Amino acid sequence: MPKALIFDVFGTVVDWRGSITREARALAEQKGIQLNAGRFANEWRSGYQPAMDRVRKGELPWLNIDALHRLILDELIPKFQLNQLSEEELNTLNRAWHRLKPWPDSVRGLKLLKKTYTISPLSNGNFSLLNNMAKYSGLPWDCIISAELFGHYKPDPETYLGSAKLLDLEPDEVMLCAAHKDDLLAAQACGLKTAFIKRPREFAPSVKLDLSSDERFDFNVDSILDLADQLSNVS
Amino acid sequence: MPKALIFDVFGTVVDWRGSITREARALAEQKGIQLNAGRFANEWRSGYQPAMDRVRKGELPWLNIDALHRLILDELIPKFQLNQLSEEELNTLNRAWHRLKPWPDSVRGLKLLKKTYTISPLSNGNFSLLNNMAKYSGLPWDCIISAELFGHYKPDPETYLGSAKLLDLEPDEVMLCAAHKDDLLAAQACGLKTAFIKRPREFAPSVKLDLSSDERFDFNVDSILDLADQLSNVS
Repeated sequence: MPKALIFDVFGTVVDWRGSITREARALAEQKGIQLNAGRFANEWRSGYQPAMDRVRKGELPWLNIDALHRLILDELIPKFQLNQLSEEELNTLNRAWHRLKPWPDSVRGLKLLKKTYTISPLSNGNFSLLNNMAKYSGLPWDCIISAELFGHYKPDPETYLGSAKLLDLEPDEVMLCAAHKDDLLAAQACGLKTAFIKRPREFAPSVKLDLSSDERFDFNVDSILDLADQLSNVS
Repeated sequence: MPKALIFDVFGTVVDWRGSITREARALAEQKGIQLNAGRFANEWRSGYQPAMDRVRKGELPWLNIDALHRLILDELIPKFQLNQLSEEELNTLNRAWHRLKPWPDSVRGLKLLKKTYTISPLSNGNFSLLNNMAKYSGLPWDCIISAELFGHYKPDPETYLGSAKLLDLEPDEVMLCAAHKDDLLAAQACGLKTAFIKRPREFAPSVKLDLSSDERFDFNVDSILDLADQLSNVS
């Protein structure tokens, strides 16, 4: 059995698409801008993986996620006609990623798990983003582990092994809980346990998702509450 | 007003002397060892600052506090006739520092402060020690900041400035809360705000302590509850 559960955050614990869409739509309405807010959210998120990969490959120096989000946002300004937004408004919009709302089961599930396990994010989001999000959305983490602490983004092994080391645990005493199979497989290659949390609504309905259970993972669950339930059945 | 409060832990939030004395006494009784547990606790703690200073000066490589505590414990074995303890018993005793009990006001005070501020330790204790202690003693931190994250021990400036950077705050938006004036003055030299928390019972009664209020600090308080009270009066 694991002693600590570390969670991917964007998409696994919080609903980035709904949250960013709502914030962008509200801002657009207030400023009288015509905006397809859902498409805007999707495109903003689409820039995330390529931007991180540029850091991972050394094409960009270490930049935290706030900086990468802003880089991508700046590229979207002409396309979505956001030119009239002031620097302060853009900065506030960029920090919408600090205010992502949890899935309906997340807070209750984490509170249950916290009774037995150390629970922490292991996210590429920067430390302050994760801390602010936890305060804003009531995520009851025991501690905050961010890729920023290691100077490496997931799926670099330094992040998974660094988390175990920081917690003074063996890799197989730590379980990564995530909605993304590539993240889980990278953690598994480092010796961590894995829980696949299915999140059918992370992406727009047009996106085809692989939500099938996979026996390579220690758990395949429908929610964080389901994970708490399944863990309590085997412990 | 500060946005984040970072706390020294040993002596400021938890009572290391009472906790270590109790654990050592219980172990000695169980093993039939004659032990002056209070003196043992004091001598163990006395080795802490010199051991950290050896790391700070580069005489020792980076060793975390678990390792330094064990180094000091090993030196005390002959003096306190602890030779009959097994490796496992010594390891469990060494981890008594993960199980320090809070002062009576600490948990209630921190819960109050958490409503308005980010609250975190900034301790020389290693990350896992601080995390385990929080779980064990119910310290409701938002996140865990350990000197280990910076590879520097307090009072090195990297620890105070590193905490502000991690929280994405200016130094003067962060307040160090501590029972030790040297720690506070080092933080102040880095631009942090300071709160002196008087802890008259941290050391044995024979130790002379400077508990006088000092106008150089932003707050001088009798407990963490008193700090919550004084902060709510000025905000």
